[in-house]
Order: sequence, then C-alpha cells, then structure tokens
Amino acid sequence: MSVTIRDVRAILTCPGKVNLVAVKVETSEPGLYGVGCATFTQRATVVVKAVEDYLKPLLIGRDVSQIEEIWQFLYGNSYWRNGPVLNNAISGVDEALWDIKGKMANMPVYELLGGRVRMGVPVYRHCSGCSPEEVEDGLRRFMEEGYRYVRVQQGVYGASRNSSMDSPLADAETARQFHTPEGALAGAYFDPKEYMRITLRLFDHIRSRVGWQIELLHDVHERLAPIDAVGFAKEMEQYKLFFLEDLFAPEQIDWFRMVRQQCATPLAMGELFNNANEWTPLISNRLIDFIRVHISQIGGLTPAKKLASTCEMFGVRTAWHGPNDITPIGVAAHLHVDLTSPSFGIQEFAGFSDNEKAVFPGCPEVRGGYLYANDRPGLGIDIDEAAAAKFPYQKYDDAWLRTRLPDGSSVRA
Amino acid sequence: MSVTIRDVRAILTCPGKVNLVAVKVETSEPGLYGVGCATFTQRATVVVKAVEDYLKPLLIGRDVSQIEEIWQFLYGNSYWRNGPVLNNAISGVDEALWDIKGKMANMPVYELLGGRVRMGVPVYRHCSGCSPEEVEDGLRRFMEEGYRYVRVQQGVYGASRNSSMDSPLADAETARQFHTPEGALAGAYFDPKEYMRITLRLFDHIRSRVGWQIELLHDVHERLAPIDAVGFAKEMEQYKLFFLEDLFAPEQIDWFRMVRQQCATPLAMGELFNNANEWTPLISNRLIDFIRVHISQIGGLTPAKKLASTCEMFGVRTAWHGPNDITPIGVAAHLHVDLTSPSFGIQEFAGFSDNEKAVFPGCPEVRGGYLYANDRPGLGIDIDEAAAAKFPYQKYDDAWLRTRLPDGSSVRA
Amino acid sequence: MSVTIRDVRAILTCPGKVNLVAVKVETSEPGLYGVGCATFTQRATVVVKAVEDYLKPLLIGRDVSQIEEIWQFLYGNSYWRNGPVLNNAISGVDEALWDIKGKMANMPVYELLGGRVRMGVPVYRHCSGCSPEEVEDGLRRFMEEGYRYVRVQQGVYGASRNSSMDSPLADAETARQFHTPEGALAGAYFDPKEYMRITLRLFDHIRSRVGWQIELLHDVHERLAPIDAVGFAKEMEQYKLFFLEDLFAPEQIDWFRMVRQQCATPLAMGELFNNANEWTPLISNRLIDFIRVHISQIGGLTPAKKLASTCEMFGVRTAWHGPNDITPIGVAAHLHVDLTSPSFGIQEFAGFSDNEKAVFPGCPEVRGGYLYANDRPGLGIDIDEAAAAKFPYQKYDDAWLRTRLPDGSSVRA
Amino acid sequence: MSVTIRDVRAILTCPGKVNLVAVKVETSEPGLYGVGCATFTQRATVVVKAVEDYLKPLLIGRDVSQIEEIWQFLYGNSYWRNGPVLNNAISGVDEALWDIKGKMANMPVYELLGGRVRMGVPVYRHCSGCSPEEVEDGLRRFMEEGYRYVRVQQGVYGASRNSSMDSPLADAETARQFHTPEGALAGAYFDPKEYMRITLRLFDHIRSRVGWQIELLHDVHERLAPIDAVGFAKEMEQYKLFFLEDLFAPEQIDWFRMVRQQCATPLAMGELFNNANEWTPLISNRLIDFIRVHISQIGGLTPAKKLASTCEMFGVRTAWHGPNDITPIGVAAHLHVDLTSPSFGIQEFAGFSDNEKAVFPGCPEVRGGYLYANDRPGLGIDIDEAAAAKFPYQKYDDAWLRTRLPDGSSVRA
Repeated sequence: MSVTIRDVRAILTCPGKVNLVAVKVETSEPGLYGVGCATFTQRATVVVKAVEDYLKPLLIGRDVSQIEEIWQFLYGNSYWRNGPVLNNAISGVDEALWDIKGKMANMPVYELLGGRVRMGVPVYRHCSGCSPEEVEDGLRRFMEEGYRYVRVQQGVYGASRNSSMDSPLADAETARQFHTPEGALAGAYFDPKEYMRITLRLFDHIRSRVGWQIELLHDVHERLAPIDAVGFAKEMEQYKLFFLEDLFAPEQIDWFRMVRQQCATPLAMGELFNNANEWTPLISNRLIDFIRVHISQIGGLTPAKKLASTCEMFGVRTAWHGPNDITPIGVAAHLHVDLTSPSFGIQEFAGFSDNEKAVFPGCPEVRGGYLYANDRPGLGIDIDEAAAAKFPYQKYDDAWLRTRLPDGSSVRA
Repeated sequence: MSVTIRDVRAILTCPGKVNLVAVKVETSEPGLYGVGCATFTQRATVVVKAVEDYLKPLLIGRDVSQIEEIWQFLYGNSYWRNGPVLNNAISGVDEALWDIKGKMANMPVYELLGGRVRMGVPVYRHCSGCSPEEVEDGLRRFMEEGYRYVRVQQGVYGASRNSSMDSPLADAETARQFHTPEGALAGAYFDPKEYMRITLRLFDHIRSRVGWQIELLHDVHERLAPIDAVGFAKEMEQYKLFFLEDLFAPEQIDWFRMVRQQCATPLAMGELFNNANEWTPLISNRLIDFIRVHISQIGGLTPAKKLASTCEMFGVRTAWHGPNDITPIGVAAHLHVDLTSPSFGIQEFAGFSDNEKAVFPGCPEVRGGYLYANDRPGLGIDIDEAAAAKFPYQKYDDAWLRTRLPDGSSVRA
Repeated sequence: MSVTIRDVRAILTCPGKVNLVAVKVETSEPGLYGVGCATFTQRATVVVKAVEDYLKPLLIGRDVSQIEEIWQFLYGNSYWRNGPVLNNAISGVDEALWDIKGKMANMPVYELLGGRVRMGVPVYRHCSGCSPEEVEDGLRRFMEEGYRYVRVQQGVYGASRNSSMDSPLADAETARQFHTPEGALAGAYFDPKEYMRITLRLFDHIRSRVGWQIELLHDVHERLAPIDAVGFAKEMEQYKLFFLEDLFAPEQIDWFRMVRQQCATPLAMGELFNNANEWTPLISNRLIDFIRVHISQIGGLTPAKKLASTCEMFGVRTAWHGPNDITPIGVAAHLHVDLTSPSFGIQEFAGFSDNEKAVFPGCPEVRGGYLYANDRPGLGIDIDEAAAAKFPYQKYDDAWLRTRLPDGSSVRA
Repeated sequence: MSVTIRDVRAILTCPGKVNLVAVKVETSEPGLYGVGCATFTQRATVVVKAVEDYLKPLLIGRDVSQIEEIWQFLYGNSYWRNGPVLNNAISGVDEALWDIKGKMANMPVYELLGGRVRMGVPVYRHCSGCSPEEVEDGLRRFMEEGYRYVRVQQGVYGASRNSSMDSPLADAETARQFHTPEGALAGAYFDPKEYMRITLRLFDHIRSRVGWQIELLHDVHERLAPIDAVGFAKEMEQYKLFFLEDLFAPEQIDWFRMVRQQCATPLAMGELFNNANEWTPLISNRLIDFIRVHISQIGGLTPAKKLASTCEMFGVRTAWHGPNDITPIGVAAHLHVDLTSPSFGIQEFAGFSDNEKAVFPGCPEVRGGYLYANDRPGLGIDIDEAAAAKFPYQKYDDAWLRTRLPDGSSVRA
C-alpha cells in the first residue's frame, strides 16, 4: 500500500525581518508529514496562492515516493514554467517530499543523497559598515567567533547604516547634493564610480590591517555598467577574494567571457537565476566558479542535486544563496546537499533569530564557523504552526529595491 | 499637473474556453483609464494576487506618463524577475498605461509606435483533425474564408478529436494497447515516432491534394527527443512550411545550431520563453526565423517593441503567440505592434466567441484573412465588467498538460 | 552507532558464457550485507585481485553510510585512476553500499534515487544473422515477444554464425580468398567496405519487409576508417534508426563533430569509455544522443546518477551498456537508475540463463519488452555463493578480439 | 481625414561655426509643421539638394502619421542607401514627422517614446589645451560649472591652439622640423607616437592634480596604426576613463576584438558609422561599450530608438555624437531619446551660441551639468527662418581634415 498525499498547506510567517513561506505536506499515514521552503519574500502571498490554488489539487492522492515524477509533472503542468513564484512553490513541495522520504527511511536526507563527505559545512557571514574601520571591527568579531569566510561591504555615500544596504546608497535628500537632476524621483541613490573607489579602498584597508589569513568575499549586486564591472573585477584580483559575486545582471551574463580573458578573480553568480538557460552555458563553458542559485528558487532538492552533479563535471562549485530570506527549512535543505556534494564550495549563512528558532524547531547549528545538521530523520527540522501564527505577514520593506543612479534613473538591485 | 494612477484592478473572467486576466488602471482624471492583458490561464488566480497585493500599492499615485520608468521599477522591485506570473502581471499594467497614453494623445496606440506600415495584419489559423482527409476539409474551409496561412496538425493515435490536442495523443486506456508498462499512470499518451510518421503522411497528403498555394505551419510542441527533432525538421523541409514551431523545449534550445547546419526549414520558437537569456542568443546568432513569445508574457508593449526592433537588426520576424489563452486586449496589443513593425512576420489568431466580444467591446476584426484595428484612441478595446462578472473563474482543464510517453514517463507539453 | 564494513569479498563465477565478478560487502550488523557488480570479463582475475589486495583493507571498519565519501576516497587512493580494472572494482563496492543503504532504509534503491518516473523500462535485444532473411526471422520473433527495440547485425563474409560476431567476419582461411597478403596472421577477418554494403542492404531489406513500426539499432563496433564512418552514418539516416552505435573508436571521438554537420542519425557512444574527458565534451557539445557507458565500468551508481543528471541538462539520453558481460546485479543497478531518470533513453538487455538466475536470485524480470524491478529493499538481488562456486572461472574466448583487416593488420573490435 | 504633407523644405544656415541643415515639413493642417536636423556640414548643399530634388516630391500628399512607413519607403527609394547625404536627408524628414506627431498628440516627443526615465540628461563637454596645465585649467572651469564628465585632449606639437584640433597637430612649417621628407605637401601634421606620449603624460597630470572624482573621456580620432591603438588602450586603462573614443577607423573595427582580450578600458565608437554592418556586430558581440552614432546621421528618431533598444539587450550604452555640427533640433532629438532610454550612457554637448539660440528658439537648456527638455509638444524647438537667413552658407574650413603623418602621407581625421 503506497503512502499518499492527504493535504498540502502553505504557511506564511514573519518571525524575523522578512516574510517566509513554508509548505507542509501531510500524508495518508497518521503523523507522517514533511516540510519545505517556498519563500519568495518579495512576493510571498503570491507563492501561497500558487500552492493552494494549483499545486494542492494536483497533489492530493499522489504517491509520496514518486518525487522525481511529481517534480516533472508539476514543472510542466503550468505550461509556462521556470520562473520565480512557480519555482518557489514547487520547491516547497519537493523539499517536503524528501523530508517525508527521509522519515520513511528513518534516515536524515543527507543519507539518501549518498551520505556525508564532510561532517560540517563552512559558512560565510555578512559584514557591512559605513567606514573601513567599522567593517574591520565587524570582521574581527566574526573571526573571533571562528568564522573563516566573511563577505565585506561598505555602505556609505551618506546612507545611514542599514543591514540591507550593502553598497554606497543614499536617500534622495542626500543624493541631491550629489548632482541628481531637478525633479528626480525619491529612492536609494547609488553612484557606481564612488562605490568602486570606496570598495577598493576598503579592501586595501582590510588586507593591510587584518592580513591574508581570512577569506574575503564581496557582492557587486549587479549594479555596475558591464565594462566597469570588468575593470572592477581586474582591480579586485590583487586582494585574492574567495569570490566576487553578481558582477553582472542576469540579463548580461555573456559579459563573463570578457572577464575570463583578463583576470583570474573567482566569480560567483546566480542568486537571481530561475532558468537553465542562464546557468547551463556559464557552467559548461566554465565562465563562473561558484553557482549561487538557492535551492528553494530553482525547484527544490531534486534539481539542486542534479545541478551540483553537473557542476562537479565542470569544476564549478556550489555556494547556495542563503541570507535571511529563506526559511530555516531552506537552510537545512542547503545543508543536506552541502554535506554530500564533492562540488560544494561554501555556504552563505545569516544566523537565526530566537523567534525563527521557536517557529522552526530543529534549526541547523553553527559552531566554530561550521554549520551542522542534526541526525533526525528527514531534514531534521519542523514548523510549529502555533508559533508561526504569532508572527503574521508584514508589508515588505523594499527601500533597497528602489535604487537609482545619480541621474535619477532606476537601476536593478 | 500630471495625471496619476488612482486604482489598479485585476479582473478574472472566463467567457470562452479558458480563464482570462485583464488589468484595469484608473487615473486621477475622471473617466480616464486603461486596460491590459495579464493572462496566464494555467495559473490565473496567482497573477491576480500579484497585481493586487504587490503591483497596485507600488502604482497608486504614480505619474501615468512614465511608462518606461514604471516598467523598469516594477520589473526590478520583485528582485527575482523575468518569469511567468510576474511578467504577466507587469504586462497587464504596461498595456493599460499605453492604452491611457493613447487616449491622452487622442490617438490609437499604433500611432505612438510610429504609425502603420500595413493597414491589416495577415493571420494564421489552427486546423486539426483525426485523419488527413479531415484536416484537408478544415483547411479548405479556412481557405474559402480567405485565410492564406494555416497551421495543420493531426491528432489521432486513438484520441478523440480535441481542439487542444494538436498531436497524436491517447488516453491511458487506449495507450495501454500501445505497450505502456504495467502500472503506468493515467495521462494523455503520446508516441513521438508515430507522431512523426503521421505528420509526414499528413503533409504529403495536403501538398498533393491541396497544392502549394497555401502557407502551411506546424507545431511540434517540443515533445520530441532533440535528435529526432533535428531529423524531423530535415524531412519536413520538402513541404516548404511557412514555419515549423517549437522543435525543442526551451531547456534545449542549443540544439537549433545543429538544425541550421542541415536544413533550411524556417524555424519559429518562443511561446514558452520568459527570459532574455532564452531569446537573445537565438536571435543574435540567427538560429530562428520567427520569435513566438507573446506580449502579455514578456512584460507588455514596452519590451515587445524593443524585441521587434532587435529582430529587425538580425532579420528575424515576429509571430506573437496568440491562441485563445490571452484576452482580446492582448490580441489588440499584438495587433498594434504588428501594424507598426517592419520585422512583423505573421500573427497567430484564434477568433473570438460571442461571449468574448460581449465582455471585451472593440475586439479587432478579421476580414479576408487580415486582422484590423479600429481607429479609437488607445488600444481601441474595453472591458465590460458587468459582462465579465457573468463568466466567473472555472477550473482549468489540464488534460493536455498530463502528457506521457509510451513508457509512462511524463513529457512536457 | 554507525554500521561499519566487516568484510569485502570478490566472487568470480562463470554461470553463462563469460566470467563475472561480483562484490559482497558485509557489515557489522548481522545479516546485513550488499552486493555489487565488478565485472571486467576480459581481465576478471585482475579485478578480483584489486578488490582483495587494495580495496578491502581500505574499507574494513568504514561507516557504510558514507557512500560518496568512500567513492571519492577509493577513486583517489590509487593515484592513477579512471581506467578499467580499478573502476570495475570500485563499482562493485559502490553498488554494494547502495544495496546496503536501501536495506537499511527498507526501500528499493530506486526510492533513494527519487522514486520511479516509469514503472518498467523498455529494453532492446540483439538480433544477428548471416543473411537479411535470417535477421528478419530473428527480428520477427523478438517482435512477437513484445519487444519494440532490436539491434540488428548481419555477420557474414564467410563467417559461421556466431552470436558474438555482430559484423561480417571471416576466418583466416576464408579471408585469404579475399586478398590477404602472403603470410598474413590468423584472425577474424573483416572487410569494412563489404561490411557497409552488406549492412545497407540489410536495412533496406528490413524496412521494406518489416516496415517502420519497429525501432532498429545498429552497432558499427568502431571498425571503420573515420571518414568512411561519416559517410556510413549519412547513408543510414534514411532508415531512421533509434541509434547508430560506436561509429568511431574512443580515440577518434572528435570526428563526431563532422557527422553532426551532415546528418541527423541518432548517435550512441561510450561502452568503451572509462574517463570523463571522453564523455563530457561529447555531452556538453551535444555531439551524441545516447551515452552508452555501463555503470559497473565507470564506478557504480554514484557516478552514474551524476552522469544521468548532466545528460538531462543537455538533452542527451542514457543507454547503459548491458550485454551478458555484466552480472545480473549490474543489470539491476542499471534498472534502478533507469526507473528514476528523466534522461533515460533505452536499456540494452541480453536475458538471463537459468544458471545465472540460480546464482543471482532476484534477477529483474522482462515482460512485454519492459524490464521490471522487484520491490525488495536495496537492489533486490542477491548472490548464492554456493551456486556461484559451481561455475568456476574459465578461459575467455577472445576470438572476436583478434580481428584483422583484409591486408592482415589488426583492427580493434 | 488624415493630415498630409503639403511642403518639405531644407533650410541652410550658418549661425555658428559651421553650416547647418534643417528640414521643415509643413502639413495640410494650417499652422501644423515639424522640424528636423539634416546636417552634414562637410557636404551641406548636397543634402539640401537631396531633400529638395528627391525627398520632397516623394513626400507631398503623404499621411504624416505613417512615420515608419515613410522611413522605410524613403530609405529604399534610392536603391543605394545607408550612407551620408541620404541618411542625413531622411533624418531631417523623420525628426520633423515625430515633431508633428508630438504636436498632434499635444505631447513632447519623449512621451510618445515611453515617457522619461530621467528628468535631465548628464552631458560631457570638450576641453582642449596646448599643455597639461592649460587643459587642467579648462577642466577645473567646467567642474565649477557643475559638469562631471569632460573630454580632455592636448593639441600641441607646435600647433597653434585651435578648438577643433583635439590632438597634437602641427602646421607643415613646424612639422618639417620633425623629419618630413623633401617635397612633403602642406597639411596639419600629426605624429602618432608623440601624440600617445603627450596624452599619457596629460592623463598622469590630470589624475594626480585633479583627482578621481571627475569622469574623463578621450578621443583618439582613429589616427593610430591598429596595433598602436591596442597598446594605447591598455596604457590608458589605469586612468579609468569614462570612455576612450574612436580607437580605430571604421574600416578597422575588427581590431576591437583584440583590445577586448587585453584590457577593460571602456570603448566608444560610431560617430562615423552610417551602416548597420558597422554597428550590429560590435554591439551583439559586446566589443564596444558606447555607440556614438548621431541620430541625424543614421536616419532620425525612428532608427535611433530601435538602436537604443538593441543596445539595451546587449549591455551597450548610447552616447550620441553631439558637437556643434548638428542643429539644436538635432540636439533636441538626442535629448528626447536620452530621456526615455534605459540604455542611455552619456550625451556629448557643445553648448549653443547666441546666434544659434536666435535661429532655433526653444533650445534645450543645460543646468548643473544636466540637459533639460522643455515641456512643449513635439521636439519643443523651432526654426526662425528669418533669423536663419541672416547667417548664410559659408565655405567649410577643412584644415583639420588635411591631416598628414610625419612622412607626408595623408591620414584620415
């Protein structure tokens, strides 16, 4: 007798800074259920609608063991596919089905994926500040806590410190002192040239004061003109980054070829990808070094394990996108793949708040710069729905997504 | 004093076979509003949610004249972008803003796009049947009505005639006679090899009986293994199609290069595209002849006009996707671009039911195989909300999206 | 408490035509063990030696759950790697570890790999004969048994019928009538030009007598000069093969590019591959359509699942090599991957003798052209060591590997 | 009733340094007319002849709304096409038709193009001098006026200061001291090696004295041997130009590929282009960063908007050529496209003399480094024909076009 799907629910909760979407798949077996991450925080309620109105009816009664079959079926069923919202919704279901399978096997999911090749996973943290000294202080604190990989960004240009502002942004008021035209719209202003100057000075400061024993990462956030990005990658080469991230917008990825001809700066890309036609050419032509998609964005564990396998063939490593806009379930999904993948490179990690830990019992734990999974069956993490309900949906603060160039025109974040 | 956006609403209606989504943008100017198409019929309510929960709050109070600025802003505001659902939602807003601008200029939208280069637009129709003779009959009827371009498909292999089944499908019961393994899931079964044999016989029949004075099109619906698709394109070359459509799945578009080395069959692709990384390489490397995206899928008139311009530089033509899963507003949007584009190739057209005409007063009219716009300001089409309300949302019949290969595994439609 | 490896043994047996090598991994858990296929029939005792002298000491005491870790460790431990003998030995261990993991999870291995996307796997059979009529007879017999894919070869040119001789071979005696020089060595003579003429006539015969409802395959066995192989692939295009196999020797795979520019004949390659540098460029450049390595040749289920995943990204399909020179355990390994892979294409299958069934209880079963797995935990197959012992090692008959061209020089088989 | 063209006139005037050609299109509607720029100052009367003898008769009676149709018609009507003279003439008509359409819509042209994405447009100015100190002084003056982008050139090598001489030129007298052969012709002598040495010293001076907060541009004027140009681009990389312009002659654009392999200096090219075969490969292969054609040279607003759209797809930006050899109408045309284009990069600007302002009422205004359009319908600029008549045609001073290399041979400017 096969175990079948009895119910599928999307759970919207905001225990930390941003809205999270989890999916719970309940089965015909009393007490047997799985959880997955379907978070697309900028469009959270839309994902919930996709799960409830469309995926749920397609899933009720299906055999929980047929994960690949269900993935292929859901993926094709919308006809238009492979984009945000729909990919997130499928991810939630897929991760929940792997959670269930792990529970049925009485094994952690990493066991189903071939077992651990490392017992803990090195992570990198985010360190931002308004001056090189402030960044240095933050960096030293992370180092003292045992972290060996830190992403550093300096957010000045008049901006108040803001953890979501990784680059020199300013409010419109301030920006007007910096030569915006008359009548320019409000927004978070950004000067690409100033950003590059500030960032080069920051790395000069960090390398001369803190030294070379720490792995540094940096995120360009796709805000530069392509040719400026090429030049910036070249200048950053001397600081021997672990990687330089999002040098180009996803619409401009063919420019990577030019970077590869001119410098050996390690390149990471992909947190904004949804589509195989974005990542396949970059990987098979070896134009990037780290793939940065996140598992809850591309459809869950099923495609992620395949992607990690393909990366292995081409010498590209994984660095799944993992700030606080995924659920701890999503973090666990990353971790289970990381533990088992020879092509693993690094794992981004943002920590968990106490509220998040309360809502998601079983959060992975970080010790000495490594993230560890527990040994419970499945993904080893749960959702406490009563706790989740205490943190209802909140309006998303999209200030950083209203970024503008000095001339007042919109630039994508 | 600028005219600003007062309200944005998504309207869900099902006057014909499938659910449609329209967007209505109302302005600070009494009586001045615009309409656009945001249809993604397979996930209709999800688009509605995206418009209402996210786009509306971003739009209230914005200057209606800044269409490009609003497009860039909305596109970037979700951070993850360029996929179904979100693109559809933006399309509805963008088309409505062009409608408003036309009304403010007291001109049809085609005038804003540079004026007409043709007064009517040739369209192609769909003709399906269960035998070559039945297809021939349908084709002759279209020819008598003045159409000069017809897409022909034969849907047999046990299937009852079904307008949405363009290829040899069978129900599971029937398919089991055709060698599915024990325990194979229910679905609409499809045999790729049988399909190719049947289709070649069909074109042989049509060309020998009806002759060469009619432009024939055919849609492979991306259901073949890539190498079989290459071979099929070569064999179809002799029938001198106007174009052969969707030879590969969007995930496999690099195979077009191989087709180009071996035959001159005109190739159309793109109805499933949402992403520039899908279409840009195909166009700039001249690997296809017709781009088949639909305007309400890629973000509206603003990106469509740009895409048509780029196609012109590379000798590629437009053939916007236009069956009955877009609103007549979307058809009007296609038509306004078609009337003004030197790179226009052909327009797909599915006709309008009486109910659709009642809900959408001002539908474009077809006469003698040409589609004509009226000369009213804007897109020249409206939505009668009371009439729309009479045709509420209905569950989508996704039978054709449950397609399976003879071995029982899922194949995308 | 982790389960550890207590013992590893290689078992050599010859219940059918050729020597087979199985590996049995026993664990610290009483009664818990796994089996794998390590067959390299042409060098069988060397593989046994590799398992016993090198792998076994490395494995005793290791945690059975760490399959990927063990794979990476064994693979790198010989320093020189990625060739026959060593890959076969690792395969045996790897398959056995997956068998154990399935038993520990109380699930068939296909469940660990994501669950079945098809309930049975279509197979192709081999049909050889000394004349078109004889091949036709054999083909019709297979069709009557429900097979829909058959590889056809004509072995004449004076040769006695011999199931292992798939091409026009002759003994030296006979060949000498055909222009061998004085003093030419004994061998199985082969005339490439005669072979091509005979084979084209064979397919002409089969297609005109048996028709197009049967999928035909053919194996060139890499015995042609490269440019002749290109021409042969073009001439075979008209017969619409399911695939044409081993058109070139592994040393000459860059010639595939030329074939791709000229014809759409589906190409299969890889049974002789041991090395990623052989398959990766062919797959990522889409130069072949089917990858033909066998799982017990490349290192077992661990690399096979990765390879299948990569194939999926590039539209290439799997056709694991599967004649009678692997154990039924190897067949089961193929089957478990086949059941779960969207990139599955076809499975070669040679049937099992009664002796093989006796030695390997739980052999997969073929019904109506489909191969089915049982639902027992693990690979669902075992080895009866007492039965195996009844069929000791035998000298390998390498007659077909002593192939010579008409001028008497050696040609690889 | 459609509005038709009643008259077309070319107006030749020289209110500033060079001859300008404007086109005025009058309509059947009393008082309704449009103006455009058709300037080709080096062959001004030929353009006038082209407008009057050929375009005017083709245009009388045509519907003014059909801009694209008229453009395609005029473009093809000369059979030989796509070069200077004819493109300029068409540009004048095309811009005038957009001016008319704006007036009919009662909207600025930028509204028809999608509305403004920026409220003002940053411009760059020209700064030349005979010594680094003189250039520095000029640069500081521009900075004080609020400009943030300045093109700097040093014109020495014995040459008298001459604002049209952007590079180290010398009169023949002086040049003869520098090794010209006996009998060398008169001309403006130029030594490429000396030019490179001087220019590198200039940028060293500017960056060390003025710093990095100012965007610097430089124009090579296509006068170097290709391999020297490659080396020069590499050496200039350290000064972080906003762009380096016209590194090669239009006949040598394939050399850009070599530059791209070696440095990230931003490259601008195109002021001499007339032809899609010049710009399309550079853009689609991402070999330049800024396209520098001017709108009145390529056929007007109709092709310019298409070109800007295509640039957007490839990450290339616009920098329309805009010194004083176009009319202020042409400047307005640039400005209206700049205001609406996401692919806008920078706008070259040369200021307007009082005479020019008198002849062309409604000139765009520059404030704080930004150029602003007025909000009048159409292009917002007019021509006062009586004022224009006060500044009749003058012989063109082509001294800078008589450039010679040290050996006395001619080099293009």
